Amino acid sequence: VSALSNALFAPTSIAIIGASADTNKHSSLVQRHLRQHGYTGAIYPVNARRSEVLGEPAFPSLRAIGKPVDHVFVNVPTDAVMGAIEDCAEVRASCVTVLSNGFAESGPDGAVLQNRVLDVARAGGVRLLGPNSIGLVNTAAHLALSSNEALSAPTLLSGRYGLVSQSGSMLGALLSRGHARGIGFSKLVSVGNEADLGVGEIGEMLINDPDTDAILLFLETVRDPAALAAMARRAYDAGKPVVAFRLGRSELGAKLASSHTGALAGSGAALDALLRACGIVCVHQLETLLEIPPLLIGRRPPPGGRAAVMTTTGGGGGLVVDCFSEQGIEIVGPNPALIETLAARDVKISSSTLIDLTLAGTNPQTYGVVLEALLASPHCDLVAAVVGSSAQFRPDRAVQPILDASQRWPERPLVVYLTPQAEQSLALLAQHGIAAFRTAEGCADAVRAFHDWQAPVAPSGERAPDAVAALLAPGGPGRAAAGARLVFAALGIPQTQATQLPPLADPPADALAGIRYPVAVKVLSPDIAHKTEAGGVVLGVADAHELRAACALILQRVGDRRPDARIEGLVVETMERGLAEVLVGYRLDPCAGPTVVVGVGGVLAEIYRDVTVRTAPVSMAVALEMIAEIRGLAAIRGFRDLPRGDVDALAQAIQAMSRLAFVPAVAEAEINPVLVRAAGEGVIALDGVIVCTP
Amino acid sequence: VSALSNALFAPTSIAIIGASADTNKHSSLVQRHLRQHGYTGAIYPVNARRSEVLGEPAFPSLRAIGKPVDHVFVNVPTDAVMGAIEDCAEVRASCVTVLSNGFAESGPDGAVLQNRVLDVARAGGVRLLGPNSIGLVNTAAHLALSSNEALSAPTLLSGRYGLVSQSGSMLGALLSRGHARGIGFSKLVSVGNEADLGVGEIGEMLINDPDTDAILLFLETVRDPAALAAMARRAYDAGKPVVAFRLGRSELGAKLASSHTGALAGSGAALDALLRACGIVCVHQLETLLEIPPLLIGRRPPPGGRAAVMTTTGGGGGLVVDCFSEQGIEIVGPNPALIETLAARDVKISSSTLIDLTLAGTNPQTYGVVLEALLASPHCDLVAAVVGSSAQFRPDRAVQPILDASQRWPERPLVVYLTPQAEQSLALLAQHGIAAFRTAEGCADAVRAFHDWQAPVAPSGERAPDAVAALLAPGGPGRAAAGARLVFAALGIPQTQATQLPPLADPPADALAGIRYPVAVKVLSPDIAHKTEAGGVVLGVADAHELRAACALILQRVGDRRPDARIEGLVVETMERGLAEVLVGYRLDPCAGPTVVVGVGGVLAEIYRDVTVRTAPVSMAVALEMIAEIRGLAAIRGFRDLPRGDVDALAQAIQAMSRLAFVPAVAEAEINPVLVRAAGEGVIALDGVIVCTP
Repeated sequence: VSALSNALFAPTSIAIIGASADTNKHSSLVQRHLRQHGYTGAIYPVNARRSEVLGEPAFPSLRAIGKPVDHVFVNVPTDAVMGAIEDCAEVRASCVTVLSNGFAESGPDGAVLQNRVLDVARAGGVRLLGPNSIGLVNTAAHLALSSNEALSAPTLLSGRYGLVSQSGSMLGALLSRGHARGIGFSKLVSVGNEADLGVGEIGEMLINDPDTDAILLFLETVRDPAALAAMARRAYDAGKPVVAFRLGRSELGAKLASSHTGALAGSGAALDALLRACGIVCVHQLETLLEIPPLLIGRRPPPGGRAAVMTTTGGGGGLVVDCFSEQGIEIVGPNPALIETLAARDVKISSSTLIDLTLAGTNPQTYGVVLEALLASPHCDLVAAVVGSSAQFRPDRAVQPILDASQRWPERPLVVYLTPQAEQSLALLAQHGIAAFRTAEGCADAVRAFHDWQAPVAPSGERAPDAVAALLAPGGPGRAAAGARLVFAALGIPQTQATQLPPLADPPADALAGIRYPVAVKVLSPDIAHKTEAGGVVLGVADAHELRAACALILQRVGDRRPDARIEGLVVETMERGLAEVLVGYRLDPCAGPTVVVGVGGVLAEIYRDVTVRTAPVSMAVALEMIAEIRGLAAIRGFRDLPRGDVDALAQAIQAMSRLAFVPAVAEAEINPVLVRAAGEGVIALDGVIVCTP
Repeated sequence: VSALSNALFAPTSIAIIGASADTNKHSSLVQRHLRQHGYTGAIYPVNARRSEVLGEPAFPSLRAIGKPVDHVFVNVPTDAVMGAIEDCAEVRASCVTVLSNGFAESGPDGAVLQNRVLDVARAGGVRLLGPNSIGLVNTAAHLALSSNEALSAPTLLSGRYGLVSQSGSMLGALLSRGHARGIGFSKLVSVGNEADLGVGEIGEMLINDPDTDAILLFLETVRDPAALAAMARRAYDAGKPVVAFRLGRSELGAKLASSHTGALAGSGAALDALLRACGIVCVHQLETLLEIPPLLIGRRPPPGGRAAVMTTTGGGGGLVVDCFSEQGIEIVGPNPALIETLAARDVKISSSTLIDLTLAGTNPQTYGVVLEALLASPHCDLVAAVVGSSAQFRPDRAVQPILDASQRWPERPLVVYLTPQAEQSLALLAQHGIAAFRTAEGCADAVRAFHDWQAPVAPSGERAPDAVAALLAPGGPGRAAAGARLVFAALGIPQTQATQLPPLADPPADALAGIRYPVAVKVLSPDIAHKTEAGGVVLGVADAHELRAACALILQRVGDRRPDARIEGLVVETMERGLAEVLVGYRLDPCAGPTVVVGVGGVLAEIYRDVTVRTAPVSMAVALEMIAEIRGLAAIRGFRDLPRGDVDALAQAIQAMSRLAFVPAVAEAEINPVLVRAAGEGVIALDGVIVCTP
């Protein structure tokens, strides 16, 4: 355990700048929470107008304390923060938590101020949590250094989950919701604006923390993707699952999260891709964040996804079946071997997909026999056990058979949903490390997240072809109007046959030799972004005679509409046919970094939001996985009697595109569409564009 | 209040057949619950082996009681139920609740037995609740006539919601979950298999019940759609909202619900359409069923859907924004007038879509001022108020401004989401009739359901053209192989030009006069359902010469492949082009009755599940609404610069198809596709089929 970690989570002394003696004031809460939960170290309230604050001797300044201070808590108006940090530096405090707001989250001026504060802290060797942090909690050390009202609870439940939250108030929400059902935390940290200490570094401390088994993240943005990814990979290797709930899943939400946090707005899909790629489990419901850890601790991403569901209540079982199905989770009924095994133990079940024991199954003996048989059976990969009314007033009767069975099969994934209000049973299950859920919706979210969990993607050893970087060097030919074709060629992506003609209404005959018809003719100009609007495109040109007419028409129309534009020539492209049109794109996301995007081509991608994103570069396996996720490509994957498309060639094109990740100059690239031909006949890129970073 | 309602919900005497004195047994619970919750009427345990059961004198038989019995509760093995009902009839009991199972829910034999039991009850004038009913509760009368373990709670919370549940155990789950947060019920009824008393009739009693303000339904199926619809319409007129949570939303769930209840499996979408059409509010999360009533009571379906969101916690507010957006709810930021109004009251808010007051807004004064201004503002149709940590330990402070504001604007829709664990605040809000939510997901579900709420569809005065019924009479020409064309013509749906030719390889020239090319040629045979597989289709025929070749080819191929088939002729159809292909279908659903289906044509409907369903017939307004719901038709509704399609003509075709509801002979009909041409140019049906009931 590092000295910093000690000063943060187990300080021997704490100074509070901005301590209030008025218990009606929010600013009195930090000091009250500290003593209330049994902090035994020294507390030094700093208050120039009082000699005592809430029973502790007060000091006019940090300097006046005259003893070493491990951790300083700052709760003063924005414009007084700089002075407080200067004082921290002067007395060589190890770390400071700044609750005050008005920094990066409030706009550009605040961001400037935040950077100045950070410079002072760094120069003085003071590590900073916040600003805009509501503080932190370490239950093992009885440290509740936070003004969050959730800490006004009489007791602080300890537990083995560490929470890192970018939202201060949601830290309190999760603390209180966990408390009510027996789920406690080892440490809770509000990282605020992450000027210095961020999710990555706090996460590293939790990996090293012997009190922490799982790391929970409440995220509004990702400010340092590299640090987050490195932490998540280390946590994965250390066997400590990292679970994230991310705000901003909707477009509007993402916009708000970005303005609320003062961070850059990345694409939500890109952020999710980043989290998944580094082995983080992503949940979509808030409560699932608290409920899922026992399903992950001690486990690795599961090889299969078949769930068996058992219940004593048809209604509750049906609810789980509906919620699982909506999340795309496969539910398997009992196989003959299982039915036989149970029959030998005098339990008769039908072959129905839902194993409904009815009221007779509330007998703990029966319930236990069936649950054990399911856990033992290789026909499923996970068991969901539903418990009815008995869970409310007879937790022992309802929960004991589950505890027994899970103890005998600890390695087998198990989730439990209790239909009634049943905090005692939930607490009992939590205490024994069994994933238990208050709602069927949350249970399904957890099982989905568990199945989506993957090992961190191994860093790629490959690189982009040297030619690509050369083409895209400043002033390189790849940056010209026709340059995208050169880059895609260098990446090895097949393209339509194209011939460049001089900008003449009557091109010479030898220039037309070898052209394969029908063709499309397009104007080539560095000044024209939207060729169709400029009259610069003619499609379906059938022969050389028509081609000459098309050249003349384009030059005339463009000359009329855009007399200013420099015309470099005309491009003649063979028109191709395929089984499907696919969008393949690359984007350097401002938060998540290099990403590759695959979707159905044309307007359908937008209408059905049928796209998928991964961090780039991708392997062939991941490229194939992406193709499998696009619903609109069902046709080329083998749907009914429709002919299969060349999925492998498409995956190669995706992989090739993803190698732009090695060329920092590229901001965005897109081919829309890539035409997919029949299996074995390859793909062909029709129209592509590359945008370089300014 | 009817005599039956009295006997059910406020009996002066209750006999229990199958009463157990063993408190370890489930069968002892009914009698214990009755006395525990203060039932003051007579209880007559019927038990031939004891003179006393749990402190009450026992009787060897119903007959032996010698006094009138209002309500009999039967909890005996399946094969003893018939005897018990015979006894009920003999002593002229008003009603009987049968807990015993093994009837329709267990399979065809059980269904036969259930019908026999019902016959005996009917003959004896005994009304029957169940079988497979867990009983009922009437809090006002202190009547807890149920073996559900949720009733083992020390107290029974009264309230103003009546619950009718097809699942016995989920009745207990809802009771206990409501109880924990101060939501009580007037009456709870488990209708079991609904052999006699069903959801419709019990619902009617709740409409007449002065203690009930809202009717909540937990449904696994719909056994009597007419009774349910009539009840829901009456409830709507009486101003008592009906809310339904329906199991079986997934395909697998629907299959299970059907086998679990012994009822016919209808399509889930058709059932939802039925519920909506009769004014029922459909929620998708279990807890929303408990939480939504205050949003509906005293209200009518809202005219607009713009939601304003205010919060003191950015994290909690962001969560609501994400959940609302995912449900397609429009969120509106404050308008200048509102910002000005608030500035005049010394509250400064930004124009950000989410009104985030931050910690400063936890001041009740500020919170109240903003909430009132939002409720007063016409720029939004609903206000969502998010409350942070203060809701946990200072309910008065957090909740009071909400109570005050809502009292001043009682008619304005308001929902509240509390981020921390805060039962006291939830109870306080419930007590004052304010819709408060434990999760942001549930809050969004409720707002979505509220916006989807519609007044019951008025019964249609129209009918199908007489010609349609005549065509489809037994043996009528509409039932022949080529009959679908005749029926669609009679309905007034435009179709491709079609010419029927004799089954000759070389048709006479005059038969080909007037054909508009290109055409498709198809074989006409009552024996061939899949024409393409039989070699009976040639597309893209350009002229009379090609047409002769196509006729010869078809006759040869069909003769080879299906030598047994009777060939009535060949149909020549002009091939048409359009902007979009649409599926328009009709289906007599086994549960929901006549329905009309609209979706994107081709395989996309299936891949993207892009279809919508309504009960038939539909008005033009509803047909247009259906078109608006199909995402894949965005193109023809005016997307980007794409040409608009003839949406009105498509709606007319949908309406025409829906009139098949007046022709009971039709089981199913489908046109796939209807081609939609440019606005003003109409639609045209390409390929249709009609299936009559056997």
